[in-house]
Amino acid sequence: MNHTVDRPSVDPAAQGCASHLRACLTRADAHAAEADVALLVRRDDAALADAVAWDTLQRGAVSAPLAGRVLTVKACFDSAGWITHAGSRVLAGAAPAGTDAPLLAALRRLGAVLIAQTNMTEFAYGALGVNSHFGTPTTPLDTRGERVAGGSSSGAAVAVALGIADISLGSDTSGSARIPAAFCGVAGFKPSRGRYPDAGMRYLSTTFDVPGILATSAAACRQVDGALTGRVESPHAAASLRDLCFIVPERFASDGVDGEVCRAFDDWVCRLSALGARIVCKPLACLAEAGAVARAGGIIAAEAFILHRATLEAGRELYDPRVGPRIAAGAQVLAHDYVAALARLQTLAAQYHAELGEAHAVLTPTVPMLPPTIRELDNEDAYLATNARSFRLTEFANRLDLPSISLPGDLHKRRPVGLLMTGRRGDDARLLDAAARIEACLSMT
Amino acid sequence: MNHTVDRPSVDPAAQGCASHLRACLTRADAHAAEADVALLVRRDDAALADAVAWDTLQRGAVSAPLAGRVLTVKACFDSAGWITHAGSRVLAGAAPAGTDAPLLAALRRLGAVLIAQTNMTEFAYGALGVNSHFGTPTTPLDTRGERVAGGSSSGAAVAVALGIADISLGSDTSGSARIPAAFCGVAGFKPSRGRYPDAGMRYLSTTFDVPGILATSAAACRQVDGALTGRVESPHAAASLRDLCFIVPERFASDGVDGEVCRAFDDWVCRLSALGARIVCKPLACLAEAGAVARAGGIIAAEAFILHRATLEAGRELYDPRVGPRIAAGAQVLAHDYVAALARLQTLAAQYHAELGEAHAVLTPTVPMLPPTIRELDNEDAYLATNARSFRLTEFANRLDLPSISLPGDLHKRRPVGLLMTGRRGDDARLLDAAARIEACLSMT
Repeated sequence: MNHTVDRPSVDPAAQGCASHLRACLTRADAHAAEADVALLVRRDDAALADAVAWDTLQRGAVSAPLAGRVLTVKACFDSAGWITHAGSRVLAGAAPAGTDAPLLAALRRLGAVLIAQTNMTEFAYGALGVNSHFGTPTTPLDTRGERVAGGSSSGAAVAVALGIADISLGSDTSGSARIPAAFCGVAGFKPSRGRYPDAGMRYLSTTFDVPGILATSAAACRQVDGALTGRVESPHAAASLRDLCFIVPERFASDGVDGEVCRAFDDWVCRLSALGARIVCKPLACLAEAGAVARAGGIIAAEAFILHRATLEAGRELYDPRVGPRIAAGAQVLAHDYVAALARLQTLAAQYHAELGEAHAVLTPTVPMLPPTIRELDNEDAYLATNARSFRLTEFANRLDLPSISLPGDLHKRRPVGLLMTGRRGDDARLLDAAARIEACLSMT
Repeated sequence: MNHTVDRPSVDPAAQGCASHLRACLTRADAHAAEADVALLVRRDDAALADAVAWDTLQRGAVSAPLAGRVLTVKACFDSAGWITHAGSRVLAGAAPAGTDAPLLAALRRLGAVLIAQTNMTEFAYGALGVNSHFGTPTTPLDTRGERVAGGSSSGAAVAVALGIADISLGSDTSGSARIPAAFCGVAGFKPSRGRYPDAGMRYLSTTFDVPGILATSAAACRQVDGALTGRVESPHAAASLRDLCFIVPERFASDGVDGEVCRAFDDWVCRLSALGARIVCKPLACLAEAGAVARAGGIIAAEAFILHRATLEAGRELYDPRVGPRIAAGAQVLAHDYVAALARLQTLAAQYHAELGEAHAVLTPTVPMLPPTIRELDNEDAYLATNARSFRLTEFANRLDLPSISLPGDLHKRRPVGLLMTGRRGDDARLLDAAARIEACLSMT
C-alpha cells in the first residue's frame, strides 16, 4: 500500500475562514474521484457565504471556538434541506429534513462551516463502508484506490483524510467512527452516551449508538469536545508522560491481530513506556465477553428490526443485500436473551471499571488488520467474516458505554493503523487530555 | 357475603408496644384458621422482646415514628433467618437470608415490630392469591372462608384485615398490593419506582415490580411513607375537598365492572363531588392501551423467564401448575416485541401525564369484581380469565410507573370493594395527602 497523501494542517484562524474553505474545496476538486464517492451532497456556494460571514464576525471580535472549521455531516443526521437517507435507497424518497440535528446545529453555531453530506454504510450496519447504492469509499492512504475506507462513517473519514474537512460528524455503534478513522489515518472519537445530543440522528441501535467526531488529530477532537461541552481547555502538560498509566489487555490486544498491526502497536507501547508512561499488562476478560454477550443477545439486530419493520415489509429488495437480511434476522431474537444480555453488560461494565482503577485508558490497536480491498469483499461469506473481525477491538467501548478514541497511526508512519485508547464512562475529558498528550509526545520523538 | 370482622384500630403509642403486640397475637390465635394460611413463619417471642425494647426506648424519649407498629413481611423479601422462597416449593431448600432487605430493615429501625412472614401467590405471578403448596388465603370479609383474599400479597392483606398487623410489606407488579387490599377491606399503596429501596426483593418483573405497603388506612400508608422518606407530615386540611380535582376515565372505570362494584364507585364519586371535589369525566385511552401493550410485548413473562430459566430446567414439576407454564412461555417472547412495547409505554406515560394535568388523581374501582370463591377457580380456564380480569384496573399504574393507592371500601360499608386513586409519577406525597383527606371526609359523612 502506498501512502502519499499529505494531510494539510491549516488554521482558519490564521488565514481567514473563506480562504481556508477555498483551499478545502480545491483539494476536493483535486481528488474528485475519491471525493465524489465520499461526499453525496455539497453546498460549496452556501458554505462560502457562511465562511465569509464568520470572517466578518471575527473581525467584529465575535468569539467562536470553531470559526471556519470545515465540517461534513454523515447522512444519518438531519441537516436542513437534505434527505436523511442514511446511505439507503429505502429512504431516498423521504422528505428533506426541516431543521439541523441539535448536535449539527451546535457545531455550526460554534463556527463550523458545513460543506457536505457524507456517504456511509447503509443504515450504519457494517464497519467496512461497503455500499452497493452510493458506492464504496476508499482510503486515501492507498493511492491505487482499491482498499476500503472503513465504515460506517466512510465518507466522513475520507473527507478529513483528503483535507476537505477539518471535522466530520459521524456515529459509532460498534466502531463506526473509529474504524474508518484508523483506516484513513485520522482521529475518531466515540463519547460516552449522553455527552452529545443525539436527537435528529437516525438510529441503528438505540442502546449502542452515539454520535462520533472525526478530525485530523486527537487534539482537534479534544478542541471540538471542549467547544461542545463548554469546557475551558488547559494547555498540554509537559512532554513527559510520567503521570499517565495505561493497561494493555493481555491476549485481547494481540490474538488474531495481523503482524503489521501488532508491530505498530508494540512500537507505540514501547515508546510510551520510554516516555515515562506506566504500562500494565494484564488480562481483561470483560472486553471480549462484552462483544460476545451483545452478539448472543441479538441486541443490535433486534433494535434495528423495530426501526425497519415497516420498510422491510414495504420493500425488502430496496435494501443493500449486505444489510437488509441482517436486519430482518432481528425479528427472531428472543426477549429473554436480549434482556439477559443487557443485564450481563451492566455487570461487565462494573468489572471493567474496577479493573481500570486509576489507569487513564486501555490501549489496543483500533482494527486487527489493514484495510481489505473491495474485491476481497465481493464474496458474501468473506464480507461477513471480515466485517465481524473489523470491530473486534472497538465494540467493547459501545457495549460497556465507554469513551474511546482512535489516534491516527500516521503520527508514527503514514499507514492505516490506529492506536485505540478507551477510558472510564463519563470521564471523556480525561481520556481526551491523555490522548492529546500522547499524540503530541509521539510526534515529537 | 357476610362482613362481620371488626378491624381494631389501636395506637401502640397510647397503650404501649408490648401490650399492643399481645393484643395482635391474641387476634391471630382467635382467627387461627385464617391466620395459619396467611402467616407462614412467626416469631412471637422475638417480636415481644422487640416490643418491650421499644417501650423502654420510648420511655427514654427515643423517637421512632413507627414504634410498636406490628409488621409482617411478604415471602419475597429477604428477612434474616428466613428462607426467601416467594411462596414456592422451588426455593424451599434455599439458604435462609443472612440480612433483612433494606426496606424491611428501614421499617424495623423506624420502630416497626416484625412478627411474621406472609403467604403469597407463587413468585407473585397471579392476582388472586391461589397457592397450591402453602394454601390459598381467604378474605376475612367473607366469614364462610370461601372467597380468595386476592394476591399476590395475600397473607399481607389478611394479616392487616384481621388486626394481626398494622403494616404489611408487600409488592406490586400489576396490582399485587392493591388488589388483596381491596378484597380484604384495607389500604394498599404502590409507590413510584425507586421511592423505596428494592434490594433483597425477589423480582417477578424487573421493569414493573415495586415494594408495596398494606395498612389499615390511607392515613396509615401516608404515615409509613412519611417515615420512610423523612417527610414531615402536615395535619390534614379542613373537611372540604374544594381544592381537589379528580378524573374519572370514561368507559375504562365502568366497562366490564360488576354491578355492585359500579354502584359503590358511583356512590363514592357522588359523595366526593358533594364535598366539593371537582370531578372531570373524560376518556383516557392510554390506560387500557398500557395494559394491552405490556401484554403484547410479553414483558413480565420474558423477564420472569430470565430469573427462572435455571430452576425451570432443574425441575419444572416443582412449580405451581398455575405459575410454571406461564413463566416458561416467556422463553418464546421476541425481543423486538419486548423493546417496542417498552418504547410505546414511554409514549403512553407522557400522554397520561399530559391528560392528568393538574388533577390530583385518576379514580376507578380497584378490582372490577367481588372476590371469587376458591372453587370457582378450580377450572384452569376460569382461573386464567378471572386472574386477567382482576388486574384490569390496577395494571396501568405499573405499566406507566405511577403511584397508586387503594382505599378500603369499608369506610363506606364493610364490603370488599376498593377505591383506586392513581397520581403523577414521583408525586407520591401529593397522592397520599389527597387519599388521606378523602378517607377522612368520607368517614365523616
